[in-house]
Formats: sequence, C-alpha cells, structure tokens
Amino acid sequence: MSTTTPTSPYTTNRQQPSGMPIAKYVPFHEQIAIDLPDRTWPEKTITKAPRWCAVDLRDGNQALIDPMNAERKLRMFELLVRMGYKEIEVGFPSASQTDFDFCRLLVEGGHIPDDVTIQVLTQARDHLIERTFDAIDGAKSAIVHLYNSTSVLQRRVVFGKDQDGILDIALQGAKLCKKLEEAIPNTHITYEYSPESFTGTELEFAVRVVNEVAEVFDPTPENPMIVNLPATVEMATPNVYADSIEWMCRHLTRRDSMIVSLHPHNDRGTGVAAAELGYLAGADRIEGCLFGNGERTGNVCLVTLGLNMFSQGVDPQIDFTNIDEIRRTVEHCNQLPVHERHPYGGDLVFTAFSGSHQDAIKKGFDDMERQSRETGKSVDELVWGVPYLPVDPHDLGRSYEAVVRVNSQSGKGGVAYLMRNEHHLDLPRRMQIELSGVVQKHTDTAGGEMSASALWEVFSDEYLPGTGEGERAWGRFTPLGVRSVSEGEGRDHVWVAARDGDREVEIEGTGNGPIAAFVDGLLRVGIDVRVLDYAEHAMTSGQDSRAAAFVECAIGERVLWGVGLHNSIVRASISAILSAVNRAERDRAAAPDGGTRISRPGGGP
Amino acid sequence: MSTTTPTSPYTTNRQQPSGMPIAKYVPFHEQIAIDLPDRTWPEKTITKAPRWCAVDLRDGNQALIDPMNAERKLRMFELLVRMGYKEIEVGFPSASQTDFDFCRLLVEGGHIPDDVTIQVLTQARDHLIERTFDAIDGAKSAIVHLYNSTSVLQRRVVFGKDQDGILDIALQGAKLCKKLEEAIPNTHITYEYSPESFTGTELEFAVRVVNEVAEVFDPTPENPMIVNLPATVEMATPNVYADSIEWMCRHLTRRDSMIVSLHPHNDRGTGVAAAELGYLAGADRIEGCLFGNGERTGNVCLVTLGLNMFSQGVDPQIDFTNIDEIRRTVEHCNQLPVHERHPYGGDLVFTAFSGSHQDAIKKGFDDMERQSRETGKSVDELVWGVPYLPVDPHDLGRSYEAVVRVNSQSGKGGVAYLMRNEHHLDLPRRMQIELSGVVQKHTDTAGGEMSASALWEVFSDEYLPGTGEGERAWGRFTPLGVRSVSEGEGRDHVWVAARDGDREVEIEGTGNGPIAAFVDGLLRVGIDVRVLDYAEHAMTSGQDSRAAAFVECAIGERVLWGVGLHNSIVRASISAILSAVNRAERDRAAAPDGGTRISRPGGGP
Repeated sequence: MSTTTPTSPYTTNRQQPSGMPIAKYVPFHEQIAIDLPDRTWPEKTITKAPRWCAVDLRDGNQALIDPMNAERKLRMFELLVRMGYKEIEVGFPSASQTDFDFCRLLVEGGHIPDDVTIQVLTQARDHLIERTFDAIDGAKSAIVHLYNSTSVLQRRVVFGKDQDGILDIALQGAKLCKKLEEAIPNTHITYEYSPESFTGTELEFAVRVVNEVAEVFDPTPENPMIVNLPATVEMATPNVYADSIEWMCRHLTRRDSMIVSLHPHNDRGTGVAAAELGYLAGADRIEGCLFGNGERTGNVCLVTLGLNMFSQGVDPQIDFTNIDEIRRTVEHCNQLPVHERHPYGGDLVFTAFSGSHQDAIKKGFDDMERQSRETGKSVDELVWGVPYLPVDPHDLGRSYEAVVRVNSQSGKGGVAYLMRNEHHLDLPRRMQIELSGVVQKHTDTAGGEMSASALWEVFSDEYLPGTGEGERAWGRFTPLGVRSVSEGEGRDHVWVAARDGDREVEIEGTGNGPIAAFVDGLLRVGIDVRVLDYAEHAMTSGQDSRAAAFVECAIGERVLWGVGLHNSIVRASISAILSAVNRAERDRAAAPDGGTRISRPGGGP
Repeated sequence: MSTTTPTSPYTTNRQQPSGMPIAKYVPFHEQIAIDLPDRTWPEKTITKAPRWCAVDLRDGNQALIDPMNAERKLRMFELLVRMGYKEIEVGFPSASQTDFDFCRLLVEGGHIPDDVTIQVLTQARDHLIERTFDAIDGAKSAIVHLYNSTSVLQRRVVFGKDQDGILDIALQGAKLCKKLEEAIPNTHITYEYSPESFTGTELEFAVRVVNEVAEVFDPTPENPMIVNLPATVEMATPNVYADSIEWMCRHLTRRDSMIVSLHPHNDRGTGVAAAELGYLAGADRIEGCLFGNGERTGNVCLVTLGLNMFSQGVDPQIDFTNIDEIRRTVEHCNQLPVHERHPYGGDLVFTAFSGSHQDAIKKGFDDMERQSRETGKSVDELVWGVPYLPVDPHDLGRSYEAVVRVNSQSGKGGVAYLMRNEHHLDLPRRMQIELSGVVQKHTDTAGGEMSASALWEVFSDEYLPGTGEGERAWGRFTPLGVRSVSEGEGRDHVWVAARDGDREVEIEGTGNGPIAAFVDGLLRVGIDVRVLDYAEHAMTSGQDSRAAAFVECAIGERVLWGVGLHNSIVRASISAILSAVNRAERDRAAAPDGGTRISRPGGGP
C-alpha cells in the first residue's frame, strides 16, 4: 500500500456527461416568460381550507386501466360526499355513455345531497355541449366545466389555428352554453372555464381568453364563475406555477366575480407543491383526486393536501378520521394500489424500523403521557410532539408500528424475506408488519438471532393453531372438514365441521363465494367477522401445489390477519378465517403488551 | 318541479368543519421563525446538475421490511456506479453487522472504482465513531458522515439537554473523528456533518453548531467539508425549506470551504419540490434514493430529480437510458414496488387512455416526422414537442402506449376487469396494458362492443396457441408433455416434449427451478429468452384448482408476455414461456402495425 497523501475527491466534480439527448429539450423559461419580481406569495402561509373539488370520477376515472362501472362510481361518489366534498366532478357525459348514464342515475335516483353540486366536463364543441346539458337536466345545481386547449404546442400541432382561432372556439362554446341554459331553468348553472394546457400557454393569451369568456358568462360576485388554471402537464418547478397564478390573479378583469381554481398534475412529482404554492399565490379552489389518481402521474392528491393543512392546525373541512376505510374504497374503485410510502395513507408511513427512531418516538409518547398526567388534560388536548411522526396516527384511525429487525444481524434479510424464500409464503404487506411485531416479542424474550426454522415455529404457532401444522394446538376452533356447494348463481353454501373447545360443531352459512358463506355461518354462531383484505397464492416449491390464503379481518375492536394452508383453496381460506378468529380470542384473554424494546441504534437524517 | 329561481351555490362556502382535533397542531411558522424577505431563489432556474449522493444502501435500506442482504446490496451498489453516481452512502456500519461486513466486502473485494467515494453514517457517539473508522480502513477515499439531532423537540424529549449540551455532542464527535483519522493515513477522509432534524431546529442554533463543527474539521476550498441540512421530517411547504437553505448559506462562516447538501424526506409529498427549490436557494449537493425509497414516505426521488432536469435540457450527469432495468433492479433490491404513477418510471405514465389525448399525441408524432422529413434531421436532433408527453419515452428506453377503452361503452369496465371477474385471471399490470392493445386491434377491425366471451376468444387466440384452449392452434411450439426432477440443491431438470412445426422434439435443460431449467433448454435449441417478470395465481372459480402463469420475456428486440393455464404449476409456467416464444415468432413474421385509431373524445385538463 502506498503512503502518498490522499487528495480530496472534491477538488473537481467527477460526474460525467450522461450522453442523453439533452439538446432535444428547451428549458421552460425559454418557452414561456413570466415576469413577476414583486411576487408576494413566498411571504404567505396557508390559514384556511380552499374550496375543494374532487375529480376522481372524471380525471381519475379516465386514467384507469379498468374504468369504474356504475357500482364503483356510486361507491366513490358516496365516499366523497361522506368525507365532506361539496363539489364533485362526476364525468365527461358527452364522451362516454357510462358517464352520461351515471349522471342520469345521480339526478334521477336522488343521490345528490342538497348541499352538493355535481360538475360535468365538456370540450367546447357544439354537439358535446348539447349532450352535456341533457345529462344534468333536473339537477338542483351543476357546474358546467367548459375547456379548450390554448397552449403554443397544441395550437400549432393539434388545431392548426392562431390565437384568434383558438379564442373563437372558447367564445362559441360559452355562447352555446348560455343559450342552452335557458332550456333547463330549474337547474342552477355555475360555469367553469379551463384554458386547457394552461402551463404551456403564454400568460398574456391565457388571460385574454379567460377575460373574453367571462364577458360571455357575465359572472357577478353573487354568481361567480370558476376560472380553472390547470397544470395539464407539469412543465416547471412549482414556484413558477405559483408565479403564473399570482400574475393571472392580478390581470383578471373581473377578479371579484371569479373563483380561481388550480388543477395540478404531477409529471415532475411536484403536484402537491404546485397546489400549495399556487394557493398561496391567490387561488381559491383546488381540484384533485384521492391518493393522487389521474392521467399519467396522477392529479394532485387531495388526501395529502388536506392532511398537510391538518398537520399545521388548519381544518381541511374534510373528514380523514378513518383513512384506512377511505383507502380501501379508493383501491376498490380504482383497482390500483396506494403505494406503501404514500403520505399519510401508505402502509409504511407510520412504521419505524430503526432503533434510534423507535427510541425517540417512545420518548415522545412517554412525554405526552407525562404532560397528560401533570395537567389532567387528555393527550388530544395537548400540543402534539412526537419525533418522526408529523401527525398522530390515531387522528387518522391508524396506529404507530415499531418493527425490530430480528434478522438484520444474520445477513439474511428480514422476516418477510425468509418467509418467502425459505417457506414459500408471500405475505401481504400489512401482514409482514404484523408478523414482524409477533417475531419481535419472541426475540425480546429469547434474544439472539432467529433461524428460518425458528421463524417457522413462531409463525406456525401464531397463525396455524389446531391445523396440525403448528407446533402446538391452541385456539378455540379446529377445522375438521369442509363441504361446499356452489349453485352457479353466486350463491355458495358451506358446511364446516370444527372442534369448538371440547365439542364438535357444524357451522353452516350461505353467501356469494365460500368465504362470504363461512362469514355468514360464523355470524349465526355469534362471531362477527368482517373480511377487509384477502390474498392467496400457490406455494411454488417444486411440485407442491398447496395454496396459501391470507385474510385480514376486523373482529371486535381488532384488525388482524389469519393464515390457512391447504391443497384445497376453499379449505385454505376457511382455515385462514378461523386462524384470525382464534388469534382474536386469545388476545382478548391475554394482558396488553408492554412497550418496545430497543435493540439497535440505526436511524439518522 | 318548482320553478323558483335557483340560487348560486357559491354565495357561501358550504364546506363544514371536519371535527378533527386541529388544536393539537401548531403551524410551522409559530415553531421556527425564518425571516428572509429579500430571498433571491425564486428568480433563479436550474442550469446544471448538483453533486449527487445516493443513500439507497443506508437510508433506503433501513426503511425496508426486508433489509438487503449482501447480494442485493452489491447489485444496488453496482447499479448506482453504472448509472454514474460518484458518492454512495453504503451503510451505517456501527449500527449493523451486515452494514459493517458490506463495507469490508466493498473495500477488500476491490468493488469501489477509483472515481467513486463511499460514504458511511455515524451518530456522534464514541464507540460508534470508532467502529465506523474500522469499517472504512483501506478505502482510497471515504466520506465520514457525522450526525446528531439538534431540533427543539428532540433536545427536550429525547436528550434532555440545552443548546450547549447538544453542541458538545457534535464537537466531541468531530474531535474524535479528527483523532481517528490519523490511524488510517491511506484513506482520504472528507467530513460531512448533519444537524439531524434540521427542519425542526432554530436557524440561529443550526448555523452555530455547523460553524463550530467546521472549526474542528477545519475545511479549506481545496479540501471542503459537506454541510448536510436534512428535512429529516418535512414540516412546511417547500418554499420555507428553500428560505432556510438560503438563510443558512448566507450565515455559514466558511461557505467557500463547504459543500451545502440537501436531504429531503417526503412527509408532505413535496420532497422533490423541496430539493429543487433548496437547490435554487444555493445548495451544491442532493442526497436521495432511486424511486424515492426511504424512511416512512421516503427520501427524495433521484430519478424524478434527474429526469426533471433532463426535461429542461440540463444534463443530469446520470444515465437513465434504460429506466426499466433500473426499476427492476430497484424492485428486486428493495422488495417494494414502484407505483404505477411514479414519474418517469411508473407503468402508466406514458400511457394515454382518452381519445383526445391519443389524438393530440398522434398529431405530435406526425409533426415530428414531418419536420424530420423536411429538415433531413433525425427526430432526436429536433426539439421535442408532443402534447402530454413531457419527455420522449424512447430516451428512457420506454415506449408510448395508446389504449382504447373497448368496454367503456358496455358499462362493464375494462379488459382487465372482465378478465378477472368473468375469466378469473388476474393479469399483471403491464400485461393488462399489452392485452388492451391486442384487443384494440380486433375492435378496430370488427368494431362495436366486446362481450366477455368475445374477449376470451381474442385472449385465448393470442396467448394460448397450441394448448387446445385457444380457438385456433397457431404458433411454432405446442407442448405435449413435461417431466421434471428437482434434486433438492436448487438444481432442477426438465424435459419438455413439444411439437415444433410438424416434428416432435424434446427440450431438455437444467437450472435453479423449472423455469430457469426450461429457459436453459430453449437456449440449447437456439432460442434466447430472458424472463423479466413472473406471476402466478390459483384460479378461484368454485372448485377449479388450475393455476394461471404469466411471464414477461425479452426475446430478441421484443418484450412481451406469455400465458399458461394448467392444473400443474410447472406445466402452466412452461406453457407461458412457449406462449411468449410463439407470439414473438409470429410478430417477427408479420408486418409492423399501423397507427392508433381514435374512438372517443375524452381527455380534458
């Protein structure tokens, strides 16, 4: 080894050109000029909720691989109403028979509460506008959302028109709206106009179109119109969007008769920031989707925006107290998952893996309890102050999870990794977290490393009671045999013979599928189980064709997982439910757990 | 129906208080004061790449359910080096034996290129610092990253110390580092200091700690130290983080000897924005993770940051030309998925579902081709201008997908929905997109709606040739029988009897698992297949215990899916690979496809 004095790696930048074709791309500020050196928004803070508009049923829906059917649409609509949204874009009725039919269902079925306004989108084209007014006829109130594209690029490439030609499209559309309005006098119409692809439009032209459209709609402070300024494609850093909003607000001729609305997409991953800074810049209203669904990278996430305000002591005027239920409904409707790291709603965002974070969080909780004791106030009356937890998970109906890394020392990875690679079980994400906690209790007691076979003992003892696969047979129920009949009309009957303590019982039920049937049977014997999540897979070890079933159940106050393994898929599912039932009964009998033991430092910035 | 004049829903805000406990939370500006009315960052734009530091192997790894083992760590390290990162935080060696061993493996195994510097994190505690220096002994250069927590909350709740006490922790740690440095004279040490939880620290105290630590490390312009200012928890809108960075840059006593570094987390969903605005505010360097892995909501996403710059014509100095491979490696290492809507890398971000977007995109491509013809330049030499596509997907090794909604008219949802609900096949996400394209070609020809049974005909004809389950038997190979032997050492042998055109052949191979063995066998008969993704599930229709296997294969220039259905899981997998092989052979023979037919308007802002 040489002993020359080592030189600093910092004297030159060692990063190399990527070779990617950067010359194809023009910086945003060379495309669109925004001159606002006296911007005021950076000095402001958010102090109240904007008017929200949820566009899940339109912008969200049209970006789904599986667009919602009527059942899923209605579930989404009812969720949005329940959460407190008063303006809901329900579709693009002239573009889709499904959207048109759904509009009619809402209007004719009496699904729209008096204080909720539906919104419908239409391009500025005559036959589409006509169809749109047909769709809302009979509603008490509705927002007609008219748009046409105004950007430099779309003017040239898509429409082949100059600014005047594009302006004409908007004005013709607005005039037709005003005319058609007279045909449905019982519906109060509010107009919304979007210069679509606003972020690619020169501000001078955007404000000209908006101001001229306003002359047609003729809004007043008592009966304003909505001016929506969409980041149809996110094209620059979010401060630039905020500058454009402040500039527009200064140049609108009828500002006091206009509700300025934001509609950020997320192409650059800064949709939430664009909404927040644009709101500081003078907007009144924000359109977005729950958990950021929507075209391409999505619309701005209404959950994140609302809870960001909540974390600052600002009431979002939307109820997020059961975020898990919101998430399950959204995942059902969209048939897309919410990511593990999605702010506030993801599986892992209230989980601490590292020892130093766990330690700090524990000290934070201890301090809250001490303050509560000393002041006689409840924890909810104190100022929240727990490191690494920006909000109290309980406020969202969630809980904090401390997960200790039992296997990090062994170099073999974590619990879920061993379960999959050694035992061919691919555990659902939330169950991985649950099992890590179970394993932790054992290592807290027994200490040391945990081998794959020891892990299997812990796992089977916890989740596979009475099946003959666990080390011990504990638990109230042991399945003995299962018969099931499917009549082909979605009605299944199951008969499950089981040992219940020291007697044999038969549980009989009916439902749509064997799981629903068995849940029905359990209810008949006084056990109330709701199945929240379900996953199943073949165990692909060689020729083994056993199925593994995982069910997440709500039983009483608890939410917990059960597991069943069997050659028959039906039997595996039923065993999984009994596994959850047995675990819930055992937990009820046992004393509550102690705190988290800290095993390793870890952590960091 | 009454005929009273409808009133505007806009005269009052109808949103109601949520009832959530907002009084628990104090707005950020009441916790930490930042006074910077003469901020300069909003006038700036990003013109060059920062110094990047990838912390996937430390901050990313410690937030995984399954922390990486040595194999996954080395794959991640090699990926980061290949992409062009020159500074890589490889672990927290004093907190984990795995991290320590990995450091030694890198140093002793000669895995660190000369122009790459490894970085190791340590808390400012004596025994942890000592262990850290043991971990890097022998490396040519290393960054020792020292941290202690400085926030108001952690001082009170976790450490029970005042500002002087916290400052002492930092200074003692720095002094010990300087002392230990002498013991490893062949390793060039660069120091990094993080006032951890910087965002919760008064700026006056943060700058005092950093400046005093700098007196100990004694950096020079030729041998600077790194000052890392982490948003350990994201606590305010991203403009506030930018203000704090500009404030710090103005108050650092040895600014010209300091590399100011950002380390944003994403608790408020604005990590990317915080990094971009903080970089405008004067920082030199950014720490983050690929696809935003990391504690809770994740670290800032290095892919998004890099490609945001690329889209503005700024070279990120990182190679993203094969983003799918980057993503697959990251998903393997982290055992966490990249979300469908993740900027640049998600499955759906270059997919257009609505007719008007497809129309505009098609016109954009047509215009690029016209310009190319007229100027004689290649498309890569022209300025990129295609609506709704902020970058050319080909620059990232991806392609644009137009998906037409065949079933949106039927009210039954999309293709994937029918496949699951009617045919019990749960298609992987990317395959759903592929199948939608296949279905589209049929509806373009046949027109009209598509029933569940017609969809099955299209599907089975495309994916199940020669299995007796398709409508027609096309394709080069027809599987006749499969034998397999597993020797229990991870070595499997398979013998597949198949019809190859009009003769019978036996394909024999060996590998780790039956799929690998069959891929080996195909290579022996001259067919090169790489399996990129694989999924399998039981078909849960009543008592049907058939398995469905889906494989994504790279065959020649093409990436495409194959499907196999069979009672035996092995046979299903092998059929799936043959399905992909047959489809690739057919495509090679056929002419390239025409453009996209536009069926519906849709779209909007």
